[in-house]
Amino acid sequence: VSGHVPIGPGREFDLVRAMLHRWGDRAHGIGDDAAVLDVPPGEQLVVTTDVAVETVHFRRDWMSPQEIGYRTTAAALSDLAAMAATPRGLVLGLTIPRDWTSTLADFADGVGAAAADVSCPIVGGDVTSGHEIVVTVTAFGSTRAPLRRSNAEPGDTVYVTGALGGPATAVRALEQGRDPTPMHRERLVHPRPRIREALWLVARGAHAGIDISDGLSSELLHLAAASDVAIEIALERVPVLEGCAVADAVAGGEEYELLVTAPTAFDTTEFRAAFDLALTAIGAVASRGAPRVVATRDGNRVDLAPGYDHFSP
Amino acid sequence: VSGHVPIGPGREFDLVRAMLHRWGDRAHGIGDDAAVLDVPPGEQLVVTTDVAVETVHFRRDWMSPQEIGYRTTAAALSDLAAMAATPRGLVLGLTIPRDWTSTLADFADGVGAAAADVSCPIVGGDVTSGHEIVVTVTAFGSTRAPLRRSNAEPGDTVYVTGALGGPATAVRALEQGRDPTPMHRERLVHPRPRIREALWLVARGAHAGIDISDGLSSELLHLAAASDVAIEIALERVPVLEGCAVADAVAGGEEYELLVTAPTAFDTTEFRAAFDLALTAIGAVASRGAPRVVATRDGNRVDLAPGYDHFSP
Repeated sequence: VSGHVPIGPGREFDLVRAMLHRWGDRAHGIGDDAAVLDVPPGEQLVVTTDVAVETVHFRRDWMSPQEIGYRTTAAALSDLAAMAATPRGLVLGLTIPRDWTSTLADFADGVGAAAADVSCPIVGGDVTSGHEIVVTVTAFGSTRAPLRRSNAEPGDTVYVTGALGGPATAVRALEQGRDPTPMHRERLVHPRPRIREALWLVARGAHAGIDISDGLSSELLHLAAASDVAIEIALERVPVLEGCAVADAVAGGEEYELLVTAPTAFDTTEFRAAFDLALTAIGAVASRGAPRVVATRDGNRVDLAPGYDHFSP
Repeated sequence: VSGHVPIGPGREFDLVRAMLHRWGDRAHGIGDDAAVLDVPPGEQLVVTTDVAVETVHFRRDWMSPQEIGYRTTAAALSDLAAMAATPRGLVLGLTIPRDWTSTLADFADGVGAAAADVSCPIVGGDVTSGHEIVVTVTAFGSTRAPLRRSNAEPGDTVYVTGALGGPATAVRALEQGRDPTPMHRERLVHPRPRIREALWLVARGAHAGIDISDGLSSELLHLAAASDVAIEIALERVPVLEGCAVADAVAGGEEYELLVTAPTAFDTTEFRAAFDLALTAIGAVASRGAPRVVATRDGNRVDLAPGYDHFSP
């Protein structure tokens, strides 16, 4: 494989070589103690890390190794989208059981596909043995103007990309031993980091944002807490994916769609034409202070279900 | 904690808050989707990731939570030293069993201490539940001139910092149910990333380097393979820590000392005065091509034992 430092002998390095073979020129400069990268002059570095654990975040009997690789990588890259950063590279920390070593190349295919979809080179990693699969993807990008979750202002409109509920609906079907519909399953196994969409939104005035990993209601709370504002949401406007319940669209996690606020109105028709994706106004930032989220359905106030918490009892 | 974005409710975020409390001003700008950092103009970004797994890399009955935190963080930072990069930040990916949540703040103390020892801010992370402890530290630094493992040249002298064998000797004692000597144990639980030492060496002409994580003999092979050279080592010159066997100094891993090559002779007395640490010439780069390591003891050729491989049978 060109562009890499030759790697010494040993079974751990054989695993690295197997992954590099699958990645081809999507991997750059692997094999030294650390990766070396350029950050464009005038831009800031944006760094995010995401841990996915077998049985907590995915199950081997629900997804192929490629899908596990794609999904865990896309989840990390989604945080770069949430900051409106252009991907510059990712490193992969991997713990795998010994019975998975022959499967590693297939997993690597999924990592490579997710990285290639947003033009992000794979620049390093570390692989060790363990009892369960743990995938840690650290992604870094750069931007002149990071999209912060703390910049929402009273008067902003709140927008969400895509249609929600697919991942939660697919997981429920799998838990019940049923096959999810192909559309719901696809949303679970191939989430798309909304990088280009984020750049479009920021160029047109979005000034606060977050990606939906813990569920829409939780992310609204995070935005409200970070910006110290109250947010009002009309539940009947939340875009629900065909065949999904509103409750799953509101509380379901791992959507990796974007939630942004902007003082301006977006041309949602132009957005759909550019990305083949919905952009929907679902509410507004109401006032400064006492961070909270107020949800209404057809004008009547309703309580929001909390999102997923890995450490709840 | 100042300088952070307020974090929403939830037990997972309570864990994050507990760690932030321990870290104080060693943590910067936590709480957005990603961390934002400046890379000094004219410098390149250096990124490395290191995974440590319970029972593979550490045992809870051998070390305190603080020591586990210190050691795993220092191991990642050591890769920045190997590139002669100045630390700019680290992110922590953490998988912990539920019975460890009350211990997390103590673990965080160790992470914070290792980061503070080399002035590296903690800028982000992700914490999830799992069956075993998996710690992934991704560290990034910057430098005008990365120290590569691929730049060793025929005629270079090969140097190593410190005295070797301590970690392997301590592990053997623990495996046999004995207490290691305090000196050996300290080398295991508090390895020091040789950041300042690396900058000193590069400023005086070191042009290839690596840190000793897999064992001296393995790292010599990595250097030889990456630089496409043959390296000759005199085993009687290898600095052995008091009370350790030469075999452990040569093959034992997780030393986190530096192995560098340079066309110039270093003033090892000045080095010792600056860092209270030995700097020892142990051999030379002999010739280009056919990467290999030739070891002699008092002039007679000997075979080198291979280092540790997590995936060997």
